[in-house]
Amino acid sequence: MKDVQNSRDHRGIEIQRVGVKEVHLPLRIVQRDGGVQSVLGNVTLSASLPRDFRGTHMSRFLEVLTRWSQEGLSSGRMKAVLAEVCDRLAARRAEMVIRFKYFLPRTAPVSRQVSFLDYDCEFAAALEGGQFTFTLGVEVPVTTLCPCSREISAVGAHNQRAVVRVRLRSRSGEYPWIEDVVELVEPRGSSEIYPLLKREDEKFVTEKAYRNPKFVEDVVRDVVLALRQDPRLTWFEVEAESYESIHNHSAFAYFKEGDGC
Amino acid sequence: MKDVQNSRDHRGIEIQRVGVKEVHLPLRIVQRDGGVQSVLGNVTLSASLPRDFRGTHMSRFLEVLTRWSQEGLSSGRMKAVLAEVCDRLAARRAEMVIRFKYFLPRTAPVSRQVSFLDYDCEFAAALEGGQFTFTLGVEVPVTTLCPCSREISAVGAHNQRAVVRVRLRSRSGEYPWIEDVVELVEPRGSSEIYPLLKREDEKFVTEKAYRNPKFVEDVVRDVVLALRQDPRLTWFEVEAESYESIHNHSAFAYFKEGDGC
Amino acid sequence: MKDVQNSRDHRGIEIQRVGVKEVHLPLRIVQRDGGVQSVLGNVTLSASLPRDFRGTHMSRFLEVLTRWSQEGLSSGRMKAVLAEVCDRLAARRAEMVIRFKYFLPRTAPVSRQVSFLDYDCEFAAALEGGQFTFTLGVEVPVTTLCPCSREISAVGAHNQRAVVRVRLRSRSGEYPWIEDVVELVEPRGSSEIYPLLKREDEKFVTEKAYRNPKFVEDVVRDVVLALRQDPRLTWFEVEAESYESIHNHSAFAYFKEGDGC
Amino acid sequence: MKDVQNSRDHRGIEIQRVGVKEVHLPLRIVQRDGGVQSVLGNVTLSASLPRDFRGTHMSRFLEVLTRWSQEGLSSGRMKAVLAEVCDRLAARRAEMVIRFKYFLPRTAPVSRQVSFLDYDCEFAAALEGGQFTFTLGVEVPVTTLCPCSREISAVGAHNQRAVVRVRLRSRSGEYPWIEDVVELVEPRGSSEIYPLLKREDEKFVTEKAYRNPKFVEDVVRDVVLALRQDPRLTWFEVEAESYESIHNHSAFAYFKEGDGC
Repeated sequence: MKDVQNSRDHRGIEIQRVGVKEVHLPLRIVQRDGGVQSVLGNVTLSASLPRDFRGTHMSRFLEVLTRWSQEGLSSGRMKAVLAEVCDRLAARRAEMVIRFKYFLPRTAPVSRQVSFLDYDCEFAAALEGGQFTFTLGVEVPVTTLCPCSREISAVGAHNQRAVVRVRLRSRSGEYPWIEDVVELVEPRGSSEIYPLLKREDEKFVTEKAYRNPKFVEDVVRDVVLALRQDPRLTWFEVEAESYESIHNHSAFAYFKEGDGC
Repeated sequence: MKDVQNSRDHRGIEIQRVGVKEVHLPLRIVQRDGGVQSVLGNVTLSASLPRDFRGTHMSRFLEVLTRWSQEGLSSGRMKAVLAEVCDRLAARRAEMVIRFKYFLPRTAPVSRQVSFLDYDCEFAAALEGGQFTFTLGVEVPVTTLCPCSREISAVGAHNQRAVVRVRLRSRSGEYPWIEDVVELVEPRGSSEIYPLLKREDEKFVTEKAYRNPKFVEDVVRDVVLALRQDPRLTWFEVEAESYESIHNHSAFAYFKEGDGC
Repeated sequence: MKDVQNSRDHRGIEIQRVGVKEVHLPLRIVQRDGGVQSVLGNVTLSASLPRDFRGTHMSRFLEVLTRWSQEGLSSGRMKAVLAEVCDRLAARRAEMVIRFKYFLPRTAPVSRQVSFLDYDCEFAAALEGGQFTFTLGVEVPVTTLCPCSREISAVGAHNQRAVVRVRLRSRSGEYPWIEDVVELVEPRGSSEIYPLLKREDEKFVTEKAYRNPKFVEDVVRDVVLALRQDPRLTWFEVEAESYESIHNHSAFAYFKEGDGC
Repeated sequence: MKDVQNSRDHRGIEIQRVGVKEVHLPLRIVQRDGGVQSVLGNVTLSASLPRDFRGTHMSRFLEVLTRWSQEGLSSGRMKAVLAEVCDRLAARRAEMVIRFKYFLPRTAPVSRQVSFLDYDCEFAAALEGGQFTFTLGVEVPVTTLCPCSREISAVGAHNQRAVVRVRLRSRSGEYPWIEDVVELVEPRGSSEIYPLLKREDEKFVTEKAYRNPKFVEDVVRDVVLALRQDPRLTWFEVEAESYESIHNHSAFAYFKEGDGC
């Protein structure tokens, strides 16, 4: 049976990424505490295509993914996946992005009731010539309460759900855990949010937010100062987006430290 | 050229709806003030398929839509579109749903500055045996401020953007305008929202919301009472959904009056 | 601490559904083979609110969900959840909708390689006065190849990914499994689809689709005939939607059997 | 009334982007033929925030947008908007991204019937120290027919809708029109797609696609070769994504020429 993909290409163009997208797959993520969490992954997996070949072999990406999806995924394991992809497809470079919801237990501040909050996360990994790059993305929902609204109003202050999106890179082999990023970001909003709050907890978070007003600019600057404390980080970006309660649009602030994107 | 669609079907099943979906098209909506607003429509158009025919003629839906999209659409005009569809496809029944963002000028409460707020709207029309049914859907964003949080907290109260979704039907030929529904719903939240607010406006809406706390249950009941004042309405449903600022999920309330869905 | 929700309401309106929406939660679904599958659930949980009460107690929905999420969910288990909700909130009626991606192993037709395909599923349950209603929804992706295009063209035929959406109800206590619905629907497209296909498999599915051309109308009618073979079913609806390869919109057909929606 | 935003900040961090997001607004886009097209815009508008200020003045973004939305937008006009933003907010840098559906008439290849196809477009502009950067993004839907499937199968070949996403930058002041990009990309798929096709047209596009099989790799390389013919371009990226008809995921290829992102 003819292998059309393998036929020689004469256009002289190496393509940086060829692969599969929107692959939904159950995955297993290694937790900081050593446990493993089953998640629903949305996966992009690609390899570079040398100039001489007409096409890649798409089925091999699925073979690799199907086999590895049973293992607990961490940055180290993703490197091994990419090494196998480079090897099987004779590629200089391979990349993999995984998006998933990750759950952490949250303890309500007064009643101490425990519930599970979802964080949108991303593992983005690239391997080229033995050089491995890993980018960790974590989105942390918080409450923001507007300092201006509080200052100028006789009573109350508008507040809303906001999300803080952090993406970061680190020196080879030393990465913070999702749990570390959540713990760093969550206290930088006006208040933490929780799935389950009893009345005494609702009083607590309402008052905490009122006493701790923050613009999106404040949230971003405070997260930046906290991230700068981690000497392992070589690059990061932070975005805070408030789903404004008095508008039908969002307010946002975005900061990046280090080169690249 | 053979007409496969026209071939005789022996499975004995009349299909209620056959047609096209996710058709994006610029449309023109008649405003209450007599003007016409250009909108981006997402259109579903279908007809029933008699049991004896294997398939419908999909291209005819696009022919009808392409021609009518130049005209100003209102409930009356949609009836004419559906009559043409029934006629051209020999169908007992035709249906059309249009979803679009509609803009209305909003005047900030103190500074009087004008900006344009977007409302997600839906026109759903059906024609069967000369009987025309029209359902108007309007989504109105508002602020809700939690009465419980305000009552139990020493300072502040959590609040958030919420959306009130109304769908309604009316006696034949007498329909409220989108503008009417917006004016009826908007004052039933804790405060109206606006794209553009100067500082003096922000103080106004913050204090108004604080003095006017509402659960989603309150919003729904107040909208229901207001809708009951309109003797033309024969069916309606109301949903209020608050994008809770202290949780990562929504609170909602839903009410329906009259039979059907 | 004052219980504002519990205060007496004088507007005289019972609200059909009050609760929470867009709650993301890891859930465990009972499989036909007796195993349990971890899924990412998107949950709506609500109860009716008697006319005399101002508000419901939203935190109780989260308490119930957090506890039950550890158990394997089936229709029987959902009835128990709803009974607890009715009990704790003194409600006449409670409802729960869960949406999740469910995975099943698919064996490629020639190479016999196994991979995991995702199906969007929905469990919708309601309990009112001891009467339990359960609606199962399953979306099955398939290929459709256009009979008209094949008939009139000298070579080839346009084809595309399509999705068949089935929702069904059954006599109390006797429900088909997700696996049953998938097995019933999947052979009714022009060809099944698979995550992982080697070249010999690709030849197989290409030729199978070409020899088995289907309009969306054909797919719907064939699924309807198959569903009518199951004497347990009391209501069902079927929609087939083709993401047309020659258009930027979808073609669809929709059929419903039985009363209600 | 106190201006909290204006208060002095001591954290020493200049923030690259502070502004508004998800602003929906009717806009007017200048067409190549000199006409103006009304579109629904989704706008992000931001400015840099100097290290000494606590916050920006969000309402000014809406003031600027509300006023400019009446004018016909082109790259030149966006430069003027950004200059005003820099001026009013004392910012070194301002950025604006507009996403919208743009419609072009398409003439069916045989019947010559005209209908309107939607293209997702993006204008992204930045102004910093008088230096203006403009990035044009256009997404063009096409059909791709798989060369491998055609080669190995006795009859037929799987095909599907695909989208080609192009983003490009050009020497200052000389930009291609959306219409130019569409005309360059559209012939590089296996076949063009159209909203409205009569039977004779369907035969034409089916046969054209079969005689013109293309991997996503082929589409990307052919678009790259065509873009290289335009001496004005200083940077571009091309992605082709096929919504595979035999899988539940996409195949894609991505190429970038020039530095930056």
